[in-house]
Amino acid sequence: MSDQDVYAKQGFGNSSGFGRSVALVMVDFVNGFNDPNLFGGGNIGEAIAATQKLLAFARRQRLPIAHTRVVYAEDGSDAGVFRLKAPSLSVLTETAHASQIVPELTPEPGELIIRKTQPSAFFDTPLTHWLISKGVDTLLVTGCTTSGCVRATVVDSMSSNFRTIVVTDCVGDRAMAPHEANLFDMGQKYADLLTSEQVMAHLAKA
Amino acid sequence: MSDQDVYAKQGFGNSSGFGRSVALVMVDFVNGFNDPNLFGGGNIGEAIAATQKLLAFARRQRLPIAHTRVVYAEDGSDAGVFRLKAPSLSVLTETAHASQIVPELTPEPGELIIRKTQPSAFFDTPLTHWLISKGVDTLLVTGCTTSGCVRATVVDSMSSNFRTIVVTDCVGDRAMAPHEANLFDMGQKYADLLTSEQVMAHLAKA
Amino acid sequence: MSDQDVYAKQGFGNSSGFGRSVALVMVDFVNGFNDPNLFGGGNIGEAIAATQKLLAFARRQRLPIAHTRVVYAEDGSDAGVFRLKAPSLSVLTETAHASQIVPELTPEPGELIIRKTQPSAFFDTPLTHWLISKGVDTLLVTGCTTSGCVRATVVDSMSSNFRTIVVTDCVGDRAMAPHEANLFDMGQKYADLLTSEQVMAHLAKA
Amino acid sequence: MSDQDVYAKQGFGNSSGFGRSVALVMVDFVNGFNDPNLFGGGNIGEAIAATQKLLAFARRQRLPIAHTRVVYAEDGSDAGVFRLKAPSLSVLTETAHASQIVPELTPEPGELIIRKTQPSAFFDTPLTHWLISKGVDTLLVTGCTTSGCVRATVVDSMSSNFRTIVVTDCVGDRAMAPHEANLFDMGQKYADLLTSEQVMAHLAKA
Repeated sequence: MSDQDVYAKQGFGNSSGFGRSVALVMVDFVNGFNDPNLFGGGNIGEAIAATQKLLAFARRQRLPIAHTRVVYAEDGSDAGVFRLKAPSLSVLTETAHASQIVPELTPEPGELIIRKTQPSAFFDTPLTHWLISKGVDTLLVTGCTTSGCVRATVVDSMSSNFRTIVVTDCVGDRAMAPHEANLFDMGQKYADLLTSEQVMAHLAKA
Repeated sequence: MSDQDVYAKQGFGNSSGFGRSVALVMVDFVNGFNDPNLFGGGNIGEAIAATQKLLAFARRQRLPIAHTRVVYAEDGSDAGVFRLKAPSLSVLTETAHASQIVPELTPEPGELIIRKTQPSAFFDTPLTHWLISKGVDTLLVTGCTTSGCVRATVVDSMSSNFRTIVVTDCVGDRAMAPHEANLFDMGQKYADLLTSEQVMAHLAKA
Repeated sequence: MSDQDVYAKQGFGNSSGFGRSVALVMVDFVNGFNDPNLFGGGNIGEAIAATQKLLAFARRQRLPIAHTRVVYAEDGSDAGVFRLKAPSLSVLTETAHASQIVPELTPEPGELIIRKTQPSAFFDTPLTHWLISKGVDTLLVTGCTTSGCVRATVVDSMSSNFRTIVVTDCVGDRAMAPHEANLFDMGQKYADLLTSEQVMAHLAKA
Repeated sequence: MSDQDVYAKQGFGNSSGFGRSVALVMVDFVNGFNDPNLFGGGNIGEAIAATQKLLAFARRQRLPIAHTRVVYAEDGSDAGVFRLKAPSLSVLTETAHASQIVPELTPEPGELIIRKTQPSAFFDTPLTHWLISKGVDTLLVTGCTTSGCVRATVVDSMSSNFRTIVVTDCVGDRAMAPHEANLFDMGQKYADLLTSEQVMAHLAKA
């Protein structure tokens, strides 16, 4: 029996669908994650290009939009376990080039910018409560990396009872095996997997 | 360049090590996840057997010990997105056989039992604050499934600044490819991967 | 200048109003808080009587309804700082008479029952995410005590971006000075203060 | 029977004491809360003066130290219910004079600075997890206002299982009745009330 069959037999892999009010979050699309010499590589560049179109669409549709950045204090006052596992992340400070959002996706006034220190966009941030203030029940997740901050964000989004959609061509990773493995896990248990074209077609009709 | 090499070059895969005070959590080792006709299969049975020894050791060492169960209300009052993705989980109610902890790991008085409704043992539960009350800084994670509730628990444990150790022979999954893929992700970014023998050898010396 | 004038001059005391979707929470209306020999007294009995009418109305209007209970483990495994300050709370266990919801407000199937160990109904509980699943943006808070679990719940509700309404005749306290002082604080900064009659008149029209 | 007697009879008002590892948090001691024409007044100036001595002591003792500031986005992207109740708070932006920490308490490198948008220093911030990273089990709370952000922080601190101490001469409020009423509530249920002299005497011996 294939893995897929095991999951199907046990009742996983159903669709949670769209609710009535959708927001877009872009996880960690910052220069440092678009640079193979820092934390980038793989298909992250393509994901940024695809997200540029989705972002333009979301702005036309006036969806609530949030961007996340990883930002650590210059003086190390917020050091923790994540930087024991990956000390190189400490370069991501407020003013570092590496932690600025990529030019293709520059935030516009009124879009939320979330500074975070952990993988999930929800962890120790106001994201849940901002989504409540906007009346959102469905979250489109884009960003990088699929196997890291996107996965962590998706698990928290679903756990928070937001219907969650991973926009498959708008998420990227430095390495393809983790990218694929995490899409499988998320699709089976936490989120629907849709292309940006499918998402835009659905929302254009709504 | 291999995936492993990409991660090494970018500064991932370091060890976060042991702190000074260790606790053990066993995630969702309940009958339903040890039954291939419900949510079990794969190497979960072996993980339970290995955890039985680790639990006996932890009791002798008087470590704080927590068990988790997935428990949903009989009347559906707590239905949410997780059960849109996996409706079959709804059988896990307070008194159902499927949601009782497996006999090999029956909790003893004084051990914390956490009822949860989402993948992470931390999500909407008192786990973080119980660990604070015990002065814990290091968490041994066991349980199932590796690619589901274990992974979600590990991400939250690390994000909460607990040094996190996945006990590799004490975690199991219904399918082996997700098991392996998630061990890779966790070892690179969130936790140290150690066998139960390595953990017990370290703690016996401490 | 009176306290009220100071707050007015500094820009506090505005109304946050009703949103589009309302839920009702009843905080800790359990036998032990309706018994002056345990944790009750003052105007708690009157608050229960007034809440009985509001609850009947909420059921007719099909509002989402949640009850909270304080529940501690029989074996002391979840002991913490709250029970250093108030050791007598430890009698509130799953099966104790003191921790059952008062007969006047017995939950009906489909109403959420939240077990909690801390003052706020939101702390380490699924309340936020259940409200998200119901599409709620406005929370009616009733219960006891005004200066304790009601106040803590109201602060978290407002902080979570729910428009929050304290139903003044449906909250009670063992002592009147703290009751009044906390109504003042909440009205100035966190919630609108309305009688049950005002609330029902508003919702009947909506 | 006096209020105090009611609380004593019901088992409240015990001491939670000091643990083994103490940190200091200073809540919202920013220019705007030290200016009676903005959000200040009352005894906040005296609280700042007393905290200056406690801070110097804490630095000599090398305690972990955290400062909080209220900071809202310039473009209103993070607007929520708190600013419906108190729209004037919106002046507290990253670069506004009103939201800078008062000169007497200027942070030193290595001290944590927490930006927050809600009353509690814990709400949507990394404070809990930073305290975990420092191995802290006891929190000294100072700041303003006693009936607002101090109270909310103290409830969350106790709920998180930190032994909590309100330093009575280091907390202040714009109005004295709420200051006193909230000291009463906190002392009965959530925290020990000690003067800065008592705290320093205890820690000097430890």
